[in-house]
Amino acid sequence: DLIKGGFDASSGWLCVLFVGLAAGTVASVVDIGTTWMTDLKYGICPEAFWLDEEQCCWSSNETTFGANNCSQWLTWPQMLGVESEGAGSYILSYMFYVVWCLLFAGLAGMLVKTLAPYACGGGIPEIKTILSGFIIRGFLGKWTLIIKSIGIMLAVSAALNLGKEGPMVHIAVCIGNILSYMFPKYGRNEAKKREILSAAAAAGVSVAFGAPIGGVLFSLEEVSYYFPMKTLWRSFFCALIAAFVVRSIDPYGNEHSVLFYVEYNKPWMFVELIPFLFLGAVGGLIGTLFIRANIWWTRFKKNSKLGQYPITEVLLVTLATAIVGYPNPYTRMSSTRLIYLMFSQCGIANDDLLCDYNRNFTDVNSAVELAEAGPGVFQAVWLLSLALILKISLTIFTIGIKVPAGIYIPSLCMGAIVGRLVGIAMEQLAYNYPTFWGFSGECSANSDCITPGLYAMVGAAAVLGGITRMTVALVVIMFELTGGVRYIVPLMAAAMASKWVGDAFGKDGIYDAHIAFNDYPFLDNKEEFGHTTLAADVMEPKGAKTLSVLTQDSMTLEAVETILRETTHNGFPVVISRESQFLVGFVLRRDLLLAIGNAKRTQDGITGESLVIFSPTLPTQWVGPPPLKLRRILDLAPITITDQTPMETVIDMFRKLGLRQTLVTHNGRLLGVITKKDVVRHIKQMEDSREFYNLPFP
Amino acid sequence: DLIKGGFDASSGWLCVLFVGLAAGTVASVVDIGTTWMTDLKYGICPEAFWLDEEQCCWSSNETTFGANNCSQWLTWPQMLGVESEGAGSYILSYMFYVVWCLLFAGLAGMLVKTLAPYACGGGIPEIKTILSGFIIRGFLGKWTLIIKSIGIMLAVSAALNLGKEGPMVHIAVCIGNILSYMFPKYGRNEAKKREILSAAAAAGVSVAFGAPIGGVLFSLEEVSYYFPMKTLWRSFFCALIAAFVVRSIDPYGNEHSVLFYVEYNKPWMFVELIPFLFLGAVGGLIGTLFIRANIWWTRFKKNSKLGQYPITEVLLVTLATAIVGYPNPYTRMSSTRLIYLMFSQCGIANDDLLCDYNRNFTDVNSAVELAEAGPGVFQAVWLLSLALILKISLTIFTIGIKVPAGIYIPSLCMGAIVGRLVGIAMEQLAYNYPTFWGFSGECSANSDCITPGLYAMVGAAAVLGGITRMTVALVVIMFELTGGVRYIVPLMAAAMASKWVGDAFGKDGIYDAHIAFNDYPFLDNKEEFGHTTLAADVMEPKGAKTLSVLTQDSMTLEAVETILRETTHNGFPVVISRESQFLVGFVLRRDLLLAIGNAKRTQDGITGESLVIFSPTLPTQWVGPPPLKLRRILDLAPITITDQTPMETVIDMFRKLGLRQTLVTHNGRLLGVITKKDVVRHIKQMEDSREFYNLPFP
Repeated sequence: DLIKGGFDASSGWLCVLFVGLAAGTVASVVDIGTTWMTDLKYGICPEAFWLDEEQCCWSSNETTFGANNCSQWLTWPQMLGVESEGAGSYILSYMFYVVWCLLFAGLAGMLVKTLAPYACGGGIPEIKTILSGFIIRGFLGKWTLIIKSIGIMLAVSAALNLGKEGPMVHIAVCIGNILSYMFPKYGRNEAKKREILSAAAAAGVSVAFGAPIGGVLFSLEEVSYYFPMKTLWRSFFCALIAAFVVRSIDPYGNEHSVLFYVEYNKPWMFVELIPFLFLGAVGGLIGTLFIRANIWWTRFKKNSKLGQYPITEVLLVTLATAIVGYPNPYTRMSSTRLIYLMFSQCGIANDDLLCDYNRNFTDVNSAVELAEAGPGVFQAVWLLSLALILKISLTIFTIGIKVPAGIYIPSLCMGAIVGRLVGIAMEQLAYNYPTFWGFSGECSANSDCITPGLYAMVGAAAVLGGITRMTVALVVIMFELTGGVRYIVPLMAAAMASKWVGDAFGKDGIYDAHIAFNDYPFLDNKEEFGHTTLAADVMEPKGAKTLSVLTQDSMTLEAVETILRETTHNGFPVVISRESQFLVGFVLRRDLLLAIGNAKRTQDGITGESLVIFSPTLPTQWVGPPPLKLRRILDLAPITITDQTPMETVIDMFRKLGLRQTLVTHNGRLLGVITKKDVVRHIKQMEDSREFYNLPFP
Repeated sequence: DLIKGGFDASSGWLCVLFVGLAAGTVASVVDIGTTWMTDLKYGICPEAFWLDEEQCCWSSNETTFGANNCSQWLTWPQMLGVESEGAGSYILSYMFYVVWCLLFAGLAGMLVKTLAPYACGGGIPEIKTILSGFIIRGFLGKWTLIIKSIGIMLAVSAALNLGKEGPMVHIAVCIGNILSYMFPKYGRNEAKKREILSAAAAAGVSVAFGAPIGGVLFSLEEVSYYFPMKTLWRSFFCALIAAFVVRSIDPYGNEHSVLFYVEYNKPWMFVELIPFLFLGAVGGLIGTLFIRANIWWTRFKKNSKLGQYPITEVLLVTLATAIVGYPNPYTRMSSTRLIYLMFSQCGIANDDLLCDYNRNFTDVNSAVELAEAGPGVFQAVWLLSLALILKISLTIFTIGIKVPAGIYIPSLCMGAIVGRLVGIAMEQLAYNYPTFWGFSGECSANSDCITPGLYAMVGAAAVLGGITRMTVALVVIMFELTGGVRYIVPLMAAAMASKWVGDAFGKDGIYDAHIAFNDYPFLDNKEEFGHTTLAADVMEPKGAKTLSVLTQDSMTLEAVETILRETTHNGFPVVISRESQFLVGFVLRRDLLLAIGNAKRTQDGITGESLVIFSPTLPTQWVGPPPLKLRRILDLAPITITDQTPMETVIDMFRKLGLRQTLVTHNGRLLGVITKKDVVRHIKQMEDSREFYNLPFP
């Protein structure tokens, strides 16, 4: 018995342990697959086709010099015998690139369409809705898990503008859902299961980014509805295990344990807060515009014929992305590499166009001095501006096609470009006007004073903040991605500015916008309800209609079945008598149907005239067919409120207690019912009526 | 009107802005004062006594060589004309040190005792209780604020084993409380005010450590009871502003923007997880033993005569700390410096005993090779072991004396020593057995493979975790203190191990232990309630006693006043009639007393025979003196439950809705009342009965 108790007590920890292990393993496989397929677009390792470019060159012992310099790895033109320089080779490479992209994306789209329609998109809006108490059957099933894992590898390899964090969260939550059935305590109780799902969501972000703490906070701030301390600790443990597994399998090699590790740690100056806040505001603006455009496009698709040809849509978007993206080096490289490049410092080893400054490095450790930009920088600025426009417009169309797709990496990417551009501008400003009061003292000649990479980091946080409206989780994720603990104040300032500007122009983040667009029954727990309506104004029935109730000991089976037939309510209040309306309890439609069916099968003599009895004793004088005793399915503790309760309190109770309905009484007598749908509808009504007074500070 | 609405909407943000600004300013003043007074123990700057040693030497342009090498700064023996070498000088320094410590501590104790008794200790248990809905008058007043600010400077300067994070949180929450009265929306509503206090607590940690995100999470995980999204964002903003102010005033100089910044970023090896988990377990053990010893000592004091002489106690503890602490260099230096030293890498510039290895550095950037420990290291190990024992035993007595005192810095300090010792052991192990399988490949001769500073970091986290039982907040605070993002998995593993081991031996962290010790009415929201009792088992009245109720329109003023006199309940249910017991509403004792007093003064003809009317209309046939209409003070929407409600649900409602009482009904009739005290008592009873089955996994 003690052992059983111990198992019961530790089963929650055990369950999240398995979830963490499984999520880490799946993520590692996805990472390895993605790397291989990404390189497959450019060439192949003929001696061992299952190796990617880096590993192929490792095995040949000719390391170090990067792309195209290792004889074991052959690009497609080389495979076909075309020499590697010249127009022919370029066109062949271009063609192979486009064809592979179409192949990958088409395959992903086919798999999703035929095998697991729920595997498309990010999945976070649906997970939020599920965690708020709604059930979407099949959304967290094993087919979704398998297809989403394969689909995300294909979609990322197809060079589409999407990331894998949202899908990884969905995958981890699927794992959590499947594994929770191993533990009866969690598998059988929806509320308990949601605790496991919250922890799994944390593991998802943990493995997608190597950001375990960020994952916990993401689950807390963005995904979960109800997040008690116990769930916090479990999430922490689950994220830890998942991170540990990824670290052990080590798909990136050692150096990548921090995804976009930044080397610099120069302190920032006060005057730099102005561009940082500006970047925050721009990020909020880009985020809001992006959300609006994306929702507009989704709505347009839904109402037009295009929505009926998902595979065509996938192929069109991929074709456009591949054709437009290949010529520009900044759009051709993977988004992850681009972000890394934007964040990086122009040190001695960085030979990108972006680092073509008029300066000489004397040795590896010399400071990166302020210098005049060379022609390469100007070219890079033009290419980056172009890349930014392309990325923004293509991402709008990409998020929403029927392949697995996350929004984090594209957001970071856009933000990093914007930030780097502002950073370069600031740097040249400081070079040309070093005596300006804000720079004074810090930007004297030949000193290291503005770091454009830092601006890219702040910009990335700002756009991601504008799109998701996270704050704490955002800043922690940025830390864990970059290691830039010294820049906490700039990052926080940008996140706050981004959130404020974003909220001023459109209150919802992208997840909430999609929840609203899809009309999921999600009761937002972020907004305060500031109106003075009462429960009596919201409850059903209104006016002349009457409430469908059952009485505890005076209704025949026929009467009960009539009510079941004529209404669609999920449950019915049981009262002492129709005249007095004193509340006894609440019975669910499902339980009632089951119990009646059961009784008809197993109990003799049940007819339409049988009394349905919810009271503990039978009525004293009573003749007729044997009665149906249903007290055991009666919920004797329904949550009730009085008709004078302010809706503010009612909404609070729905949110915090996770109610589906509450009964409204007056002096002990039942008056009506308020369901979650009534509440959601009422909030929407009241908000619409307030639109005129919409103020930036929520 | 729109402007008023805007002000109303933004007043929350404005309030936390002011709180952040004020908290940042106070913290900076405290920091500057502490530095000055700490140095005052050793010497003075005769030309400008208000400068500390560093600034004194700055003003003389003879920087760089650290202590005792700047002619402007005179140690006390030098001031008295004694040459700075030799026994005489040492003894004089020693005496001055002890006297200054006694002076500072005595002054702090006097101030606390005479002016603000609530300013002693950390204050976090009380703040937790306040945030859970209890009111302690004067605890967050202006005198507490002023005395605590001065007291913490004095106490830290007195070289006692205490830190300033708890007091800084208390100070920030005082500021939040005082400033919230500027905004009627928050000052007048206790529940709203608690939102501001939660945000202020985040600012407190933010300024104490320069850890804004850690502060938000500390407020979330450890301090706050109810933490909605809105409070999360406000806390984030408040912590940001506070951190920004501290950064602007810059009490430490630029380099200290990250308090214990670690330079190394070598990846850790898998085999190192074993010592990390070991450190976690040791940390959990030390934490639990510390809590038990501290509570035991506090109880002993309470029941003995010693508790009546707080100043004597302060002086005794200070005397012991100063006398024992001075000879050992590791206890003489400030705890902050000691932690920094423990965390640091033995690089070329580090000439502490601890870094006396048999190795030569060729240049500044060469790797720190594995090397044999020299005699200095062994001496340091002995001194550190001694320091550890002293620190642990003295801290037990220090936490609880009547001066402001926080537990973080001492915990980090103990943990850092333990960790460093384990780290040195591991390092020598790796040096002597480089071929052991766990080290293989990584610890070849002359390579940099074990970083003892990292062990110190992990150990510090483990002990702090053992004492406070934080997880997420702990890891984020460790990041922000050290910048060691690469070590997230070791830190998380140690935090988890520490929490599990700690929980296995004693369920409460130090704050909860002190709450339990002081019997504060705190309803813990971390534990699940796993029993099957019903509301009917807990509600009052039990047995033959009857419930004190008022009727809505049939009681005379005299009868009401009799009930008020004969009971001490905080409020009374109002029913239709004593016979039917159908519930109408709930009225608070305070409102009832006020309304009756008011009516007697202002309304003519009120006598003991006047009817007290809670119904909207007067009873139809009625003669006698004018009635007292009290419907406006009646709460028409009291929270009710049925007698069959499981206590698990009831406790959930109390926690989440912050109830003080709930009314229990059966079929609409009032049966009884459950108050928060009843709930707390019931939980305690049920837990005590379960002690036998106490399992490590909660």
